[in-house]
Amino acid sequence: MPAKKVINASVSPKGSLETLSQREVQQLSAAGSGSTYSLFRQCALAILNTGAHVDNAKTILEAYQDFDVYIHQQDRGVRLELINAPADAFVDGEMIASTREMLFSALRDIVYTESELESQRIDLSNSEGITDYVFHLLRNARTLRPAVEPKMVVCWGGHSISTEEYKYTKKVGHELGLRSLDICTGCGPGVMKGPMKGATIAHAKQRNRGGRYLGLTEPGIIAAEAPNPIVNELVILPDIEKRLEAFVRVGHGIIIFPGGAGTAEEFLYLLGILMHPSNAELPFPVILTGPASAKAYLQQLHEFVGATLGEAAQQHYQIIIDDPADVARQMTSALGEVERFRRQRNDAFHFNWLLRIEEGFQRPFDPTHENMASLQLSRNLPPHELAANLRRAFSGIVAGNVKDKGIRRIEEFGPYEIHGDAEVMLPLDRLLQAFVSQHRMKLPGGADYVPCYRVVS
Amino acid sequence: MPAKKVINASVSPKGSLETLSQREVQQLSAAGSGSTYSLFRQCALAILNTGAHVDNAKTILEAYQDFDVYIHQQDRGVRLELINAPADAFVDGEMIASTREMLFSALRDIVYTESELESQRIDLSNSEGITDYVFHLLRNARTLRPAVEPKMVVCWGGHSISTEEYKYTKKVGHELGLRSLDICTGCGPGVMKGPMKGATIAHAKQRNRGGRYLGLTEPGIIAAEAPNPIVNELVILPDIEKRLEAFVRVGHGIIIFPGGAGTAEEFLYLLGILMHPSNAELPFPVILTGPASAKAYLQQLHEFVGATLGEAAQQHYQIIIDDPADVARQMTSALGEVERFRRQRNDAFHFNWLLRIEEGFQRPFDPTHENMASLQLSRNLPPHELAANLRRAFSGIVAGNVKDKGIRRIEEFGPYEIHGDAEVMLPLDRLLQAFVSQHRMKLPGGADYVPCYRVVS
Amino acid sequence: MPAKKVINASVSPKGSLETLSQREVQQLSAAGSGSTYSLFRQCALAILNTGAHVDNAKTILEAYQDFDVYIHQQDRGVRLELINAPADAFVDGEMIASTREMLFSALRDIVYTESELESQRIDLSNSEGITDYVFHLLRNARTLRPAVEPKMVVCWGGHSISTEEYKYTKKVGHELGLRSLDICTGCGPGVMKGPMKGATIAHAKQRNRGGRYLGLTEPGIIAAEAPNPIVNELVILPDIEKRLEAFVRVGHGIIIFPGGAGTAEEFLYLLGILMHPSNAELPFPVILTGPASAKAYLQQLHEFVGATLGEAAQQHYQIIIDDPADVARQMTSALGEVERFRRQRNDAFHFNWLLRIEEGFQRPFDPTHENMASLQLSRNLPPHELAANLRRAFSGIVAGNVKDKGIRRIEEFGPYEIHGDAEVMLPLDRLLQAFVSQHRMKLPGGADYVPCYRVVS
Amino acid sequence: MPAKKVINASVSPKGSLETLSQREVQQLSAAGSGSTYSLFRQCALAILNTGAHVDNAKTILEAYQDFDVYIHQQDRGVRLELINAPADAFVDGEMIASTREMLFSALRDIVYTESELESQRIDLSNSEGITDYVFHLLRNARTLRPAVEPKMVVCWGGHSISTEEYKYTKKVGHELGLRSLDICTGCGPGVMKGPMKGATIAHAKQRNRGGRYLGLTEPGIIAAEAPNPIVNELVILPDIEKRLEAFVRVGHGIIIFPGGAGTAEEFLYLLGILMHPSNAELPFPVILTGPASAKAYLQQLHEFVGATLGEAAQQHYQIIIDDPADVARQMTSALGEVERFRRQRNDAFHFNWLLRIEEGFQRPFDPTHENMASLQLSRNLPPHELAANLRRAFSGIVAGNVKDKGIRRIEEFGPYEIHGDAEVMLPLDRLLQAFVSQHRMKLPGGADYVPCYRVVS
Repeated sequence: MPAKKVINASVSPKGSLETLSQREVQQLSAAGSGSTYSLFRQCALAILNTGAHVDNAKTILEAYQDFDVYIHQQDRGVRLELINAPADAFVDGEMIASTREMLFSALRDIVYTESELESQRIDLSNSEGITDYVFHLLRNARTLRPAVEPKMVVCWGGHSISTEEYKYTKKVGHELGLRSLDICTGCGPGVMKGPMKGATIAHAKQRNRGGRYLGLTEPGIIAAEAPNPIVNELVILPDIEKRLEAFVRVGHGIIIFPGGAGTAEEFLYLLGILMHPSNAELPFPVILTGPASAKAYLQQLHEFVGATLGEAAQQHYQIIIDDPADVARQMTSALGEVERFRRQRNDAFHFNWLLRIEEGFQRPFDPTHENMASLQLSRNLPPHELAANLRRAFSGIVAGNVKDKGIRRIEEFGPYEIHGDAEVMLPLDRLLQAFVSQHRMKLPGGADYVPCYRVVS
Repeated sequence: MPAKKVINASVSPKGSLETLSQREVQQLSAAGSGSTYSLFRQCALAILNTGAHVDNAKTILEAYQDFDVYIHQQDRGVRLELINAPADAFVDGEMIASTREMLFSALRDIVYTESELESQRIDLSNSEGITDYVFHLLRNARTLRPAVEPKMVVCWGGHSISTEEYKYTKKVGHELGLRSLDICTGCGPGVMKGPMKGATIAHAKQRNRGGRYLGLTEPGIIAAEAPNPIVNELVILPDIEKRLEAFVRVGHGIIIFPGGAGTAEEFLYLLGILMHPSNAELPFPVILTGPASAKAYLQQLHEFVGATLGEAAQQHYQIIIDDPADVARQMTSALGEVERFRRQRNDAFHFNWLLRIEEGFQRPFDPTHENMASLQLSRNLPPHELAANLRRAFSGIVAGNVKDKGIRRIEEFGPYEIHGDAEVMLPLDRLLQAFVSQHRMKLPGGADYVPCYRVVS
Repeated sequence: MPAKKVINASVSPKGSLETLSQREVQQLSAAGSGSTYSLFRQCALAILNTGAHVDNAKTILEAYQDFDVYIHQQDRGVRLELINAPADAFVDGEMIASTREMLFSALRDIVYTESELESQRIDLSNSEGITDYVFHLLRNARTLRPAVEPKMVVCWGGHSISTEEYKYTKKVGHELGLRSLDICTGCGPGVMKGPMKGATIAHAKQRNRGGRYLGLTEPGIIAAEAPNPIVNELVILPDIEKRLEAFVRVGHGIIIFPGGAGTAEEFLYLLGILMHPSNAELPFPVILTGPASAKAYLQQLHEFVGATLGEAAQQHYQIIIDDPADVARQMTSALGEVERFRRQRNDAFHFNWLLRIEEGFQRPFDPTHENMASLQLSRNLPPHELAANLRRAFSGIVAGNVKDKGIRRIEEFGPYEIHGDAEVMLPLDRLLQAFVSQHRMKLPGGADYVPCYRVVS
Repeated sequence: MPAKKVINASVSPKGSLETLSQREVQQLSAAGSGSTYSLFRQCALAILNTGAHVDNAKTILEAYQDFDVYIHQQDRGVRLELINAPADAFVDGEMIASTREMLFSALRDIVYTESELESQRIDLSNSEGITDYVFHLLRNARTLRPAVEPKMVVCWGGHSISTEEYKYTKKVGHELGLRSLDICTGCGPGVMKGPMKGATIAHAKQRNRGGRYLGLTEPGIIAAEAPNPIVNELVILPDIEKRLEAFVRVGHGIIIFPGGAGTAEEFLYLLGILMHPSNAELPFPVILTGPASAKAYLQQLHEFVGATLGEAAQQHYQIIIDDPADVARQMTSALGEVERFRRQRNDAFHFNWLLRIEEGFQRPFDPTHENMASLQLSRNLPPHELAANLRRAFSGIVAGNVKDKGIRRIEEFGPYEIHGDAEVMLPLDRLLQAFVSQHRMKLPGGADYVPCYRVVS
């Protein structure tokens, strides 16, 4: 990698309300708690790389080893001093405003998370406590706006998709924006950017100056999927399970675009929750969509759901092929249903308190070979439990494909063995094969994909 | 007392960002923690009495015994249901906007205070910890605005003053407002209202739509001094010491108008802090002022300071008689000094971190007869310690005059005995006599004032 | 008169949109059209005297003979250079924002009026043309806001009233403001200021940042009744008839407080219009009100209307004594009626197109002795014509009392003779006598009032 | 052409200040002045076609022959009733906000133009009068914002360009937007849209909510080049010469992208003005730019200027190939120069009063065969006069290519003959040949281009 252009700079929040106490500044300084400092340094570096086309956290961290950030509390508020920061975050020496905003969002979230963990207030030992924690994190980030009707649409899908699929996500975002809907994504590139870009143009056409482009991320993923600069609200949740819970509690509806194993994991997480008997009456619009070229992919995913979780699972979403305006129309109409329901039940518009999420979905799954091998994948299970286990299986595959720890495990112990009923295992195998043949599985080093798993029925 | 007009109503915050978690709602409900609920009920009732001319908490509470408030979390955010609320808070059945805002400010502060106390995070065992706590309370109330130059002027003085003195405070407020300064008071009537009213008109003339009228109060005082409706930022600190610390840390300068023992207490608190050697170089403008008719009063206060704390103490303030424009000009010029100093020292504009406040000033003084009798009031003490003790003496007198507990103690044990050197006791006695003859001591029941203390030199 | 304090200053509009063409700047310069320049100089001087307590145009003009104003067009817009300007318009050398705004409003209106008169577009030869002209003047001043429900309340009454009456106008303004109503007055002191001041405080309480305080004036009156600084929209109409028409076309309801002959003139103007058969169905709320002390005055006015114009005329208004909240409630309710009517008839909320105003009301009345003597004041006339003639009689009396030309005529030819039926003349005489005995007639030089008229029946 | 989808709708301005007098409504109604009505109908139809990809006014007008628009003045302001309007202007039955805004902008400009022409105020008989008229039109459209530093960049170029060139204009717009510059174009597709789209995304990144996308058009061109929906300020000037003058008086710098004869016309108009001796010291940044693929084109244009107008002409612009960031940097730096100059000369930022534009540039050129044949194209002329004549030659070619009247003349009398010195004619011929071979000349009917001119040296 050639020498990077770097810049030293000093930035303050503009018109922001962020203030820190002296103790918080101390905590964040290199001399204070090392872990808080290094977490912030890592997130800051990722944010400064916004727009760069490298989706590998390690590469970025290595490329800017001499990057450093100091926090000062001073006369007019907080100031960040950046040493050897990526030059692309600046225009003629001045930091791009969205980047600056995101830096201070990261600061806010990390300070708050640390402070909460330090206190004894949070009770992470039960489901209600975890949900409460997610609520507090989002509220502190000022993401919860009470007097606003349901219009936050979550868009899920791959961060690395074909040009045609990317253009399609822009068109869908444009149609959503024309109907004054807001966009929430994982805030990286690909599907996480396209809908926001389309909505930006549409909101401009509709003279909508309050359009929200909400990005939810977590420290483990931000470097790989640096927030795109359209994001105008960034929240860094502490881990992937909190982030998933944040998606389904602040989002009023979800659109799923083509993606790989990660997208499948999200989809199964969602189905597992929606199929829980307690959520039976809760309206939660889900739309699978893509351009004509993605029809086969969507069909396959649909068939996989039917084969494993049954027809009931298929009732929780609709599939729309190549019709952005229809996607937006269906979503708009379904959001009206969500609004009526929440009014009736007196549930908040800004946080889906009524949605039941079982602890199993809130707790991390550690994909050891043992855990992977002992997953129960049988149609005898209640469908929402099977969905939960399938989600874990995909989670393991994602880890084995791209995460440091997972890759090392595969190298040491060989591929994961996934056991289960043939009724489940065959469709699973077909789906994974399709992902491979459609190049939807990450190919480290560009070589042919060597699966990190073996399906054993 | 005749039957009060009452109203049942349901109110939601308008355009506010307040949201509550389900646990917080539960905590606040009557069925939850009783003490939180009853604290909120009491503050709510006081706020709803805004504008009423009763300065007796007990009377209000008794007059509206069947007042009740329920908190609901619902579709569009928090909603308060009020039962038998004072009708004066409403115009044609709709609650006055400022009252509504203050209700939700009280909700915010009480929820936060409870939540912080519940957590183990706050360390109230040392001075830094207490200051940190005050900072967090103010930050949570969004009172700390970083990118704003020093222009918050605290106005202290009596809540029950003569018409002439009241008009004078309006004129001073008008001149401050013409110079774009903001006003912070204890948020009740009298001196706490006049400057805000004057500044409101002046800010309108200057087309200044962002004028701040910050009211700092505490649960023990809010009922007696219900916030006046000009206040557009209300913060309820947990007790009087936190409130005093908040005044001197967010205020950039202080104007002291005529008042009684309470005002003397505040003045001595301030002098005690400013005379601390650590604060020697810190610019902190203090102006004593009043109309021509108050000249004798101010002169007496000035002489008392000279006689007890010495000339050095008199250097910390200036006296301006009957010249509102000059007061504002001197304050404006001194605030420029404050700004330069903070820039130089890199101290925040929004919170006076550098001001040293000793723990003695941060801890409550319990005015038992024993504590009062053992106060050391001698010129042999370092002046800032003598100031601290004099502050305690006045604090006891205020309690003996008007606070439930104090009054009962006096009834039981007779007047407090205050001992000390003649050099201190004589001036003190003269000052208190003057307060009595000028009707600046509260007269419960309207009868002649019977002092609750005896000065023994 | 002692030497006035003066200041030289240079001011630019702040955040305003005013721009001038080079031709307009030329026109306004002393070297250009002398009359435009001197008109602007006179209005500017009056505005700079805002807040001064001199109600005599001549005195002001003489006191500041060396005042001058130059207009420059430059890089960032228009700039005014003021020479020897009254120092009271400045705070520590900087012009008060409202004064600055009004200066540029005057500039805008004078430029527009000149420019329109110069063009051949305006047709002042007929009633529609005059109304169209008034519309264009108000639109150019951005006074007409389409999407706003009817809530502009005109307050008429004397500029020199008793303290009790002044306080009462503040209370009424406060109650109007609590109900989010806006205020329109002739923009001077007395009744023209009180309601605006009360509404300012009430709007602050209701967190209403868009409160409108509309002042309508004309060059002949602005110096005597300098706009009070609460006015946040100032429009200078070319003459008194255009100003009266502006009041009744932008105002949605009118409150009449105590005043003298001028107020009587306005009241009769209004009754003359409302009694026109074409306006029979048009809702137009009119309330006469005052404190208890003004009861006799209001009663007398009411009786005079009954005696001269008949009971039908009395149906066009209601009288409310000493009840500010009731005034505001009645007005609010009547404005609802206005809104319904305009919706039904598709008439604009912002301009009362449907109100028929006969040319007789739109044309100036020149109070020569001959014209005064030939006024027909007989109950045989249709009531709206009698009202028109009574209005002219009062107009003449006002001129004879306070206007230069009128005073000189009286000096030369003796008092006006007003002829008419005894049925009309007796009540008129009684009313005028009452004005004198209540000191509601202006007393030039402070001497006993010598009437400028003789009632001859 | 297949049947168009149409919609009937009724729209009101949202939050706009537009109000009309009854006379203006009457004037605009079909029953009033027919020409005003039909002009507005035509512009309205063009605006409703925003986003359609037809660049032929006639086609659009024919496709919607039964389109109609009625204007109503009513309770809450103006309302437009649309009959058989193109369905693409609506999203789920509601008109897109930008389209609605533009409809009312057209209404405003047409009403004003008519009203001004009707009055005798405007003096179009001399250069100053015409400039004054342009100023008034722009001011009435609220386009002139005084207190804003120079940052309006005009982008000229073809409305029909290659995909690569279009993408390049987006990139340049993005870089301009990152530097907080605003964009002004002729408001159609191609170069008129790309820079605005790029700047929209960049302004979002910079959190710049006040970005201006100013479109200047005229009735003769709006149908062919319907305003793109990014435009957030639309002004309809009465004819092409007023429009060109508006460009150079409100724009602070100009970027010229590839285009055809129309772009050449604009470029020569600009050079003719900048070369006038009176403008010698006036800074006016002009940049020719395009992607690498357009290098030959730009080189050719440059050579043509050198060959005909000489090296001095070439000093008035710089050429930047394929470097969007550099274009933006050079423009930013040059705008600083413009700001300094205007400050120094006290010229307005919002309107370039000092720029001398000779009457020859302000008057329409009627391209009859006789006028074309008698154009003096000789290097003996002063360069700015030769530039003026070359501009006329291109204007005639544009007319002969695409305008109704021009096409009919060519059909009747054969190609124009353009005479001149060989030194001028040879380069001109080469340039025109290049336009043809690069498909930059409009090809009516798609056939091979048959030139509408003959170059005769």
